[in-house]
Amino acid sequence: MSNYRYKCFDCEKIYSKEEVEINLIYLCPDCGEVEKNTPLKGILLIEYDYDDIAKKISREEFLRYPTGKFWVYDFLYPIDFNNERLKKIKNQLDKISLPSNNYLIENYEAKQFAILDDTRNPTLSFKDRASSLVALKAIELGINFVSAASTGNAGSSLAGICARLGLKSIIFVPKKIPEAKRIQIQSYGAELVVVDGDYDLAFDICLEISGRKKWYNRNTAYNPMTIEGKKSAAFDIFISTKGKVPNHIFIPAGDGVIISGLYKGFDELKKLGWIEQLPKLISVQAKGSDAIFRFYNERKFEFKNANTIADSICAGAPRALYLASKAIKESNGDIVLVDDNEILFAQKIISEKFGMLIEPSSATTFAAFQKMKFDNSLLLFTGNGLKDVSSLSFWNKQPEVLSIDKIKEKYF
Amino acid sequence: MSNYRYKCFDCEKIYSKEEVEINLIYLCPDCGEVEKNTPLKGILLIEYDYDDIAKKISREEFLRYPTGKFWVYDFLYPIDFNNERLKKIKNQLDKISLPSNNYLIENYEAKQFAILDDTRNPTLSFKDRASSLVALKAIELGINFVSAASTGNAGSSLAGICARLGLKSIIFVPKKIPEAKRIQIQSYGAELVVVDGDYDLAFDICLEISGRKKWYNRNTAYNPMTIEGKKSAAFDIFISTKGKVPNHIFIPAGDGVIISGLYKGFDELKKLGWIEQLPKLISVQAKGSDAIFRFYNERKFEFKNANTIADSICAGAPRALYLASKAIKESNGDIVLVDDNEILFAQKIISEKFGMLIEPSSATTFAAFQKMKFDNSLLLFTGNGLKDVSSLSFWNKQPEVLSIDKIKEKYF
Repeated sequence: MSNYRYKCFDCEKIYSKEEVEINLIYLCPDCGEVEKNTPLKGILLIEYDYDDIAKKISREEFLRYPTGKFWVYDFLYPIDFNNERLKKIKNQLDKISLPSNNYLIENYEAKQFAILDDTRNPTLSFKDRASSLVALKAIELGINFVSAASTGNAGSSLAGICARLGLKSIIFVPKKIPEAKRIQIQSYGAELVVVDGDYDLAFDICLEISGRKKWYNRNTAYNPMTIEGKKSAAFDIFISTKGKVPNHIFIPAGDGVIISGLYKGFDELKKLGWIEQLPKLISVQAKGSDAIFRFYNERKFEFKNANTIADSICAGAPRALYLASKAIKESNGDIVLVDDNEILFAQKIISEKFGMLIEPSSATTFAAFQKMKFDNSLLLFTGNGLKDVSSLSFWNKQPEVLSIDKIKEKYF
Repeated sequence: MSNYRYKCFDCEKIYSKEEVEINLIYLCPDCGEVEKNTPLKGILLIEYDYDDIAKKISREEFLRYPTGKFWVYDFLYPIDFNNERLKKIKNQLDKISLPSNNYLIENYEAKQFAILDDTRNPTLSFKDRASSLVALKAIELGINFVSAASTGNAGSSLAGICARLGLKSIIFVPKKIPEAKRIQIQSYGAELVVVDGDYDLAFDICLEISGRKKWYNRNTAYNPMTIEGKKSAAFDIFISTKGKVPNHIFIPAGDGVIISGLYKGFDELKKLGWIEQLPKLISVQAKGSDAIFRFYNERKFEFKNANTIADSICAGAPRALYLASKAIKESNGDIVLVDDNEILFAQKIISEKFGMLIEPSSATTFAAFQKMKFDNSLLLFTGNGLKDVSSLSFWNKQPEVLSIDKIKEKYF
């Protein structure tokens, strides 16, 4: 069991576990703020006693843990597995484990790179890392209803993980949600609330209803478990590379939560004395959704409507903007823009050369890698291409139907 | 390296490895027959020296092998990994490995059962087991082009596995192929030939062109590697259950190749002296595609056009009919029919209660299990529901778009 506390990313105020969790607090009570078309203020981060952990477990022991099952090293997670409710479901955790063989090495045009393949997770997206931790915390807190606002993958992930662990999910979606993603959320038995408005409105009304109903809320960046859950990717990379973490990691960035999670994970490994240096975190955004890029370079945030084929990273006001920006800076990383044509071309190469169908958002990492071609790089693939095949149709034309005679003519 | 020979299932004639493989023979040269709307005759099965294997490796040693990587016990596969071409790609085999945690335990209405979850394989279907072995054999034979006729999953699987291993695939599909499945095949970089006709015609022309071009052919049941590849599921079950194989296994059956493969695998485990009794293999067919059911009960085959929502098991003339029928009989199994409504209802329960999106064909196993409720059962889930979301739309209605006021009215 872990020993932890919460700390506000902005005002750095400290809160005890009890203060935050008994009162179902998400953002900093002092400076936290949810505002339309604006990044969140007062995101709470979880801190452990790293010196104490480093005394109890060695780097070598940690490296022997399996990947894809973060609960096996529960001392780095804010979950109390001695809780009676969690004890009851402990033998069911395999249902939410990730494939253990998701670290791959590929080659393209004489350059080698690694892939962390999160496209075969339980609901086929990276978001399962966050949803799983959220669901476990809900069970620990004795809450059976978990809600979220989502444009697709997060809702589908939460709904699927909740179904696997016996929880009920309520998902608020904007009316423009892609058909395929809407069907996934519904299929998992979620209560679906289609809001007559955009994602921001769905986010707001989800918070309001969830607060009243005392549902546990999984809104991304808002619930501390979302960043905390995503840090498991850093540990999986650390274990898969036997401690030799890559120099560069390419990460698709919309709300900035994935890069924030990875940064937190690697930063903890450094605090534990298990790595000397953080990998450079290369944040990749679509040209039509470049809020983190603009903030990072101009030091000011300005809301602009976002638009890109990579719908999973389409965000005008990245919820974790400030944290994502810090992650890039502190890791000596960078931020790269790729346009929709580059994204679709990257998706095509990945499919044809590596046999992997991935979402446009995941393809951004390969497009960016093609520009930089750093040695010792790892690309994050965060969503399966089958979650919405419409992007694949862009570069696969409807083929001609051929008669037997025509076929023989062509091949004989 | 394994020691093996080929034996005709029908006339029992024996052929050496060299006779079959150097001449690119698929069916028995003596009695083999491909005929329209008729099951195949002369399927060749691979036989090993089981006494010799049992002398070299013990049951306990075998049970320590990982699941999802059949090549680690190459003595039970017809592949020579000392071959120069295969040596070169040996470090790339992780790309085609299956998730190691695909054996799950579930409960429903006070009944427990196990699931072998093949929905998160490299191309999200069971067919990857066959495609992988076919692709490795092609590499061993020095053939860079692999072809198949397919109605969807087999083609997509072959195309994806070929892309992963650097081979070129050519897939012949009937013109009625579902859009989503067509796009998957194309995306993997396969050369797609859309035949103006049905699956049978695609099968025939694929054979003819492949023969002329000396492409390696993966047509299901026709290429001995397809049944041989699918037997790996039996070994995975044996290893996952630590040798305590289930009493009953529910298997979706269209062409009858999956049940034939499982039967072969369990039969080999019995010949090796590692299990005493075969699991009862329960073949499940859709009411609208019941050729194996009719043959099993009436002992005669009659072609009837097949039609079911479970398109992956829709087959008027099951290619491996006789072998599938033997598998049911010899294992003391059974054959069960379920109708399309039962299939869709099963798909809904699996999604909502277990958080797994599966194809209609996979859902047949749960529908059948619900009828029989045998103790100690395992269900095979063979394809991911996201491969074609149209079936999910049947039971997920388009939801109403709600204004903020309506939402508040509903939840406050």
